[in-house]
Amino acid sequence: MRLPMLSMFSALRQTAFQQAQHSAATPLLLQKYLRKYSSDNNINAKMVAPTPFSKDFFFRQLFDETSCTYTYLLADLNTKEAVLIDPVLEKAKRDANLVTELGFTLKYALNTHMHADHITGSGWLKQLLPGSKSIIAKASGAKADIHLNEGDPVSFGRHRIDTLATPGHTNGCMSFVIHEQGCVFTGDTVLIRGCGRTDFQEGDAGHLYDNVHSKIFTLPENFRLYPAHDYKGTMESSVWEEKTYNPRLTKTKQEFIEIMNNLNLPYPKKIDVSLPANRECGVYDIPKE
Amino acid sequence: MRLPMLSMFSALRQTAFQQAQHSAATPLLLQKYLRKYSSDNNINAKMVAPTPFSKDFFFRQLFDETSCTYTYLLADLNTKEAVLIDPVLEKAKRDANLVTELGFTLKYALNTHMHADHITGSGWLKQLLPGSKSIIAKASGAKADIHLNEGDPVSFGRHRIDTLATPGHTNGCMSFVIHEQGCVFTGDTVLIRGCGRTDFQEGDAGHLYDNVHSKIFTLPENFRLYPAHDYKGTMESSVWEEKTYNPRLTKTKQEFIEIMNNLNLPYPKKIDVSLPANRECGVYDIPKE
Repeated sequence: MRLPMLSMFSALRQTAFQQAQHSAATPLLLQKYLRKYSSDNNINAKMVAPTPFSKDFFFRQLFDETSCTYTYLLADLNTKEAVLIDPVLEKAKRDANLVTELGFTLKYALNTHMHADHITGSGWLKQLLPGSKSIIAKASGAKADIHLNEGDPVSFGRHRIDTLATPGHTNGCMSFVIHEQGCVFTGDTVLIRGCGRTDFQEGDAGHLYDNVHSKIFTLPENFRLYPAHDYKGTMESSVWEEKTYNPRLTKTKQEFIEIMNNLNLPYPKKIDVSLPANRECGVYDIPKE
Repeated sequence: MRLPMLSMFSALRQTAFQQAQHSAATPLLLQKYLRKYSSDNNINAKMVAPTPFSKDFFFRQLFDETSCTYTYLLADLNTKEAVLIDPVLEKAKRDANLVTELGFTLKYALNTHMHADHITGSGWLKQLLPGSKSIIAKASGAKADIHLNEGDPVSFGRHRIDTLATPGHTNGCMSFVIHEQGCVFTGDTVLIRGCGRTDFQEGDAGHLYDNVHSKIFTLPENFRLYPAHDYKGTMESSVWEEKTYNPRLTKTKQEFIEIMNNLNLPYPKKIDVSLPANRECGVYDIPKE
């Protein structure tokens, strides 16, 4: 039986790999090549394990299968203060339930940006877990209890989220970094082996490229990278992996802009419902039970 | 606006919570109750962070959206030897690609049991990543390169998986434990706030209950618990969470058997395709590209 080609071609950018691409390489040959390349270039020395989470830091990733959105529940295990990053309206009850079961108090529902593909759970969570507040970047233009400018920290218990302005997918995109835990939440700015589209909501491919290269790819390479979405069942990446294998962001800026300007993606299905709702940070049009 | 009831009622089993259930509790009241209960009973002292993964241990969870299956890629970061737990046929190329990108060598494709809802990726992976071997419990009756009996260890690099026979969902179900890393892979034996059905493939509700209570719920409570499936977008649990909140497994054995015998679930859609294929550990009927 013919051995199929791995679809890895598009993902590998190093010169050595490009040589391999021109041969009629089978997975076996490619794997041998990769192994030799790896040992010759010590490439895997970069792929080190992330810094372990500290014992008082709680992390839980959650998924919305309709919009393929990842929501992140983080908490301080001593004070029990928790935050949710990018909650989804239809999953707000699930998330509130989990927060309660774990004995946490939700302090903030944070949004990396004003999503076009789903309605934020922020408003619904504020009703389910009174006392919690919604947060979004000021530049997003959306209403919220708290607006962030770049550099404004967000704290829960003794933990601190640092905020980076990373516009490009939208003009109000932020990435959230927790340096001590070695992780970055990139929203739609960097996706796993991809990135958010830049053809609506004041998107700008050049800005996205610059912000990723100056603010995210300059983080330590072993930082865990958690996006707002994934459509292929991958859940996590690292700064090193995206710097090495992201098929778009490893290109030159000019090539990147050309790719992004020629994606010819369909008009986002839910944008006409999501944007008006998300401008109110999810209080608008909450479904009655 | 009326505050909606949280759906947590069904999940909470403690007496104090049961009292709360009988009141016309809003989420706010319930949350206050929970907080008081927690501090009175020191319940959250049990919800401690998991032991951090060691620096030479790589962990990555992956998802198949069609069958809602979780696949786990584990590796020794020094020797680069890797294993995949419960790979899915349609995702085998994605998984092989990732293994290769990360510079790993796949040693084993392990199966917690003979799945009825999807075809294992083991056979396809053996062709994509030559040298890798398929593993399943001997009791499953499936063919594989290596058959496991309870207690047979599986090693990759310096890491060691301990194998527990946990039949009940099927008669060949195993759970995999890595004590040093504080985690257990439960297959369909324990799902997050649920468990696998027990009405086919020699399933037995009583066996499932006994095996969970004697072999999984006796692990340290802060062990991470990783199931083979989830249908609600939750990805991870802990032994403590399932001991505390699993709506089925916190019942008495008799109540549990009654619940399981009255689920009236439909005939599994893919069982007639999956079982013959999985009996051959995925070599059967591999789609041509």
